[in-house]
Amino acid sequence: MKIKEIGGEFELINRVTKSSGSNPDIICGIGDDCAVIRSGENEYQLITTDMMVENDHFSLKWFTPAQIGKKLMESNVSDIIAMGGKPEYAFLSMSLKRDTEVEFLDGFYSGLYESAGRHGVLLLGGDTTHGTEYVFNLTLLGRVAPSLCRLRSMAQPGDLIAVTGTLGGSTAGLKLLLKDKEGYLPDHLEPRSRTREDGEAIAHHAHAMIDVSDGLGSEVTHICNRSNTGAEIIMEDIPLSATTIASAQILNADPYEFALYGGEDFELVFTLPEKSLGELRSVFSDFTLVGKITPKEKGIHIIKNGEKTPVLKGYDHFS
Amino acid sequence: MKIKEIGGEFELINRVTKSSGSNPDIICGIGDDCAVIRSGENEYQLITTDMMVENDHFSLKWFTPAQIGKKLMESNVSDIIAMGGKPEYAFLSMSLKRDTEVEFLDGFYSGLYESAGRHGVLLLGGDTTHGTEYVFNLTLLGRVAPSLCRLRSMAQPGDLIAVTGTLGGSTAGLKLLLKDKEGYLPDHLEPRSRTREDGEAIAHHAHAMIDVSDGLGSEVTHICNRSNTGAEIIMEDIPLSATTIASAQILNADPYEFALYGGEDFELVFTLPEKSLGELRSVFSDFTLVGKITPKEKGIHIIKNGEKTPVLKGYDHFS
Repeated sequence: MKIKEIGGEFELINRVTKSSGSNPDIICGIGDDCAVIRSGENEYQLITTDMMVENDHFSLKWFTPAQIGKKLMESNVSDIIAMGGKPEYAFLSMSLKRDTEVEFLDGFYSGLYESAGRHGVLLLGGDTTHGTEYVFNLTLLGRVAPSLCRLRSMAQPGDLIAVTGTLGGSTAGLKLLLKDKEGYLPDHLEPRSRTREDGEAIAHHAHAMIDVSDGLGSEVTHICNRSNTGAEIIMEDIPLSATTIASAQILNADPYEFALYGGEDFELVFTLPEKSLGELRSVFSDFTLVGKITPKEKGIHIIKNGEKTPVLKGYDHFS
Repeated sequence: MKIKEIGGEFELINRVTKSSGSNPDIICGIGDDCAVIRSGENEYQLITTDMMVENDHFSLKWFTPAQIGKKLMESNVSDIIAMGGKPEYAFLSMSLKRDTEVEFLDGFYSGLYESAGRHGVLLLGGDTTHGTEYVFNLTLLGRVAPSLCRLRSMAQPGDLIAVTGTLGGSTAGLKLLLKDKEGYLPDHLEPRSRTREDGEAIAHHAHAMIDVSDGLGSEVTHICNRSNTGAEIIMEDIPLSATTIASAQILNADPYEFALYGGEDFELVFTLPEKSLGELRSVFSDFTLVGKITPKEKGIHIIKNGEKTPVLKGYDHFS
């Protein structure tokens, strides 16, 4: 039986996940951006890990080695930031080709360290081995005060749904490259995580938070599934950049599809009560309201031209 | 320039490693079995990560999926045990083939969980992606009391060198498989880490400790390099099992070569002052003395039939 026959990668994870039992130190195991473990009196440790494979997460046709290193670090940092946390220590495993050029690795590490330096991350260990394609895995540790720790499960009916920055830029760049068109590529080749300061500012006021790895539709679905709620996303309210709109015109495509189902924007999606909106805006304002959390029985919908449409599944490695 | 032209994987690590600066929480970064980070008043956190690639660390011709899962967990557990520590939380990343059978993964996880259960490890997260060959990465967290934390750098001239169990069995099994010979295979297909209790018992009396990933020659060299010492290994004193000796006869090979340069036995190599020998033996006795630590200027040697021979390099992914 193939993975797609049981429903794809998320069903696979459900199938093989065992309960972590009744260990009181484990605040959250599999099923959020990070695992959350109690660490001392008033602190949680956060742990996340991301694997990037050649020709899936990056193509050597388009990415410089430094851009691969940066993307690996930013994607992990984004998971820590999305919990309200501070990234700290990284561990890198690499499967390299036997004939890998040292210059390739010098470039890769320069990008990794540049991104690590920007976020205050120290690389403390790893493993190096070889295979027939490049595979990079980063594990990142961080920490957060319990009061700031934002889980996917914390949304409440009535919450507003907000996203930082703009969405769809990474996918727009990827589509341009795939179709050999000229256009704006930095959002795809050098996506950036939000900063720790942004994440903390939001965490003070938000209920649930998640980063955009697989598209807004997928992330809101994760929040709803874990929070036992429904949601309504107003499609026309999703923030798009001028470059993403221009790319979509070149591609004759719908930029909202990039935002909903593309992913890898590493922006933050969060929910918050309406009464907290003013206070958050006074310290952090680079966000847009895109919908609201509803009771579970209302389902998860996108409102497009005033009409309800269902949320489709995001990217699946095995579908 | 290729990696082998700068000297291989260890030289690569030296080239790209940046100092972790003067952060007082970092007891040990890159360069030991685990990274060691201060965690609270009287505890260190240990972090290790190991990547296993198809056709390098395992062949699907020989390994069952469960055996792959077990080997991945045991190799990481062994790194924590070699610091004197207690393994706790694991994070798994996998690059699977698109057409991976769910039954393959059920088998893999059953092995992983069996080994995790034996060592008290909980799997708390991970990442699943796809590629053209199987790649599995495990990151394992653990903890140790500072007084029991055993680094490679702690050996002192005059220390005895000891190894647990017997060595060379994993390599003997691999060679039988590679040459299509019948013989004893469990040491290769299902290597086992020592237990936490073994590691702690040794840690109470040892100075330096390391696990056998790349062969006794390579591990003693790591200890000497980090401790700024020399060493003398008495080849005839290296413990071999009857099955390893029998395999070597079938292969018309020298079983001591398997022990010195083979690796993946996941036994422990440690150094201790002669005066501690009796006390250790009273609580843990499954070890053999194989040599002694000498001043640095004496170099690192193997004594074979009474004659000094140099220690060769262990397995290198890029040589």
